[in-house]
Amino acid sequence: MLYAGIEAGGTKFVCAVGNGPANILAETRFPTTSPTETIAQAISFFQEQQVLHGKLHSVGIAAFGPLDLNPASSAFGSITTTPKIPWAHFNIMQAVQQALNVPVILDTDVNGAAFGEWRWGAGQGLECLVYLTIGTGVGGGLLINGKLAHGLVHPEMGHILLPHDRSRDPFAGACPYHGDCLEGLAAGPAMEKRWGKRAETLPADHPAWDLEAEYIAKALVNFICTLSPQRLILGGGVMAQPQLFPMVRLKVNQLLNSYVNSSSLLDKELLEGYIVPPGLGNRSGVLGALALAELAE
Amino acid sequence: MLYAGIEAGGTKFVCAVGNGPANILAETRFPTTSPTETIAQAISFFQEQQVLHGKLHSVGIAAFGPLDLNPASSAFGSITTTPKIPWAHFNIMQAVQQALNVPVILDTDVNGAAFGEWRWGAGQGLECLVYLTIGTGVGGGLLINGKLAHGLVHPEMGHILLPHDRSRDPFAGACPYHGDCLEGLAAGPAMEKRWGKRAETLPADHPAWDLEAEYIAKALVNFICTLSPQRLILGGGVMAQPQLFPMVRLKVNQLLNSYVNSSSLLDKELLEGYIVPPGLGNRSGVLGALALAELAE
Repeated sequence: MLYAGIEAGGTKFVCAVGNGPANILAETRFPTTSPTETIAQAISFFQEQQVLHGKLHSVGIAAFGPLDLNPASSAFGSITTTPKIPWAHFNIMQAVQQALNVPVILDTDVNGAAFGEWRWGAGQGLECLVYLTIGTGVGGGLLINGKLAHGLVHPEMGHILLPHDRSRDPFAGACPYHGDCLEGLAAGPAMEKRWGKRAETLPADHPAWDLEAEYIAKALVNFICTLSPQRLILGGGVMAQPQLFPMVRLKVNQLLNSYVNSSSLLDKELLEGYIVPPGLGNRSGVLGALALAELAE
Repeated sequence: MLYAGIEAGGTKFVCAVGNGPANILAETRFPTTSPTETIAQAISFFQEQQVLHGKLHSVGIAAFGPLDLNPASSAFGSITTTPKIPWAHFNIMQAVQQALNVPVILDTDVNGAAFGEWRWGAGQGLECLVYLTIGTGVGGGLLINGKLAHGLVHPEMGHILLPHDRSRDPFAGACPYHGDCLEGLAAGPAMEKRWGKRAETLPADHPAWDLEAEYIAKALVNFICTLSPQRLILGGGVMAQPQLFPMVRLKVNQLLNSYVNSSSLLDKELLEGYIVPPGLGNRSGVLGALALAELAE
């Protein structure tokens, strides 16, 4: 079976054809411009691949959102109220389905990444995991009871509210909707506004990282108390700082204060296997899209 | 089929026999004392009922915790690290199973209540709901993708961390583990410590209720962003104050600031059907236990 995956990001698209991380037949990436132009580029890539390798079975799309994922809705398959105006209310699922005439399955970029990690990465065999990306934004994907979470709309984990001690951190927060929500306090752009420098240029011993680890740890404590996940997988540009993982783990352990009685949280060695980087590196999204394609019928 | 349910609370046990809210054949309640005495009382009640009505098919238990719900664990079925010392490490599931020799299923009190509301109450037909109780403690049950959530242990929603503006509310919080977590700020005992009076004696226009609604709303915003539930059901003694529901709904709407694009959150009338009291009143727990019994094999 030949599957296609699209990681449809706000700044770039990644398209791949294959049937798993060990068997990618072709891959391409290009900037996200208008929906018409960007989708046409993806379609022509997949059409070429079909000429070379035969008919695609299906396409999975892991897209920036918010998305309408309700099969009963007339807008099912659309990107809804994004500030990226040309994409607002664009039905990405339908556009791909009509052009290629194969089944298409759509989910959020972060649910896609969570699914990729579950299928081939750091979350294999788990019933419940969270994939959190901390980069230009903060977003979370959730697999629970063996399935991706949708519910009313889909999770928007980047926008949870956290303790914010303004005497320690007077920065008001950068989220246009909520000010000092998780994304407003801890995404890359918030770090840049707070410290006046791009996050990746701050030295490893800069106090920025201790504060950053504190906010991430508080968010993880909330996810642990709300969901009791079996593993937390942290990706995105900010998490590429190697000093962050040990700091986040230590603070999670301290903040929970032995309340949640699981060796995964109480034992410092096991905690290293509980809060982890993505097993697929920065390819969780595109491989997750490919894994979603396997579900399409 | 005849089922038994036990709502095993920290202060009282409620036991019922029947097969749904419209067909309860017998019910009893008694204080929670030692495990031996309390379980013996429950067993003798069920044995009498078996004499009158025939063999029970199974027993569901919705118990205070924390619980070990991992079937692969040697302590599966136990209450684990509770501060109620005689109950710590007591295997409640095994005790009932061995005495009655029928299948027994155990879950947390709040997962039980969530399940009761899903089966017969305010959550019927939903794929994802949260049941939150705000009383002497704060706890949450979670049904998602059609099943109760367990994961690593089970949710402990009462212990999420929230913004706490100490200039407005200098109270340090009452949780022995986390200080000003949700339970530490908003449970009945926290209200009593903060205001010097029992919550139910505070008049409806006391500023305590505005602050209480604020903390509850912030918690709900976090659950909405993390889980995208299709409904939030709020029970417990504190929520018996009728003025709280409209205040909580309004604050949730304001805090989300139209970010989550669902009419359930944007439309004030639909919001009344989204954040709701329990459909089973204060019987979600015992009826939930009965509903759990239906799952036991």
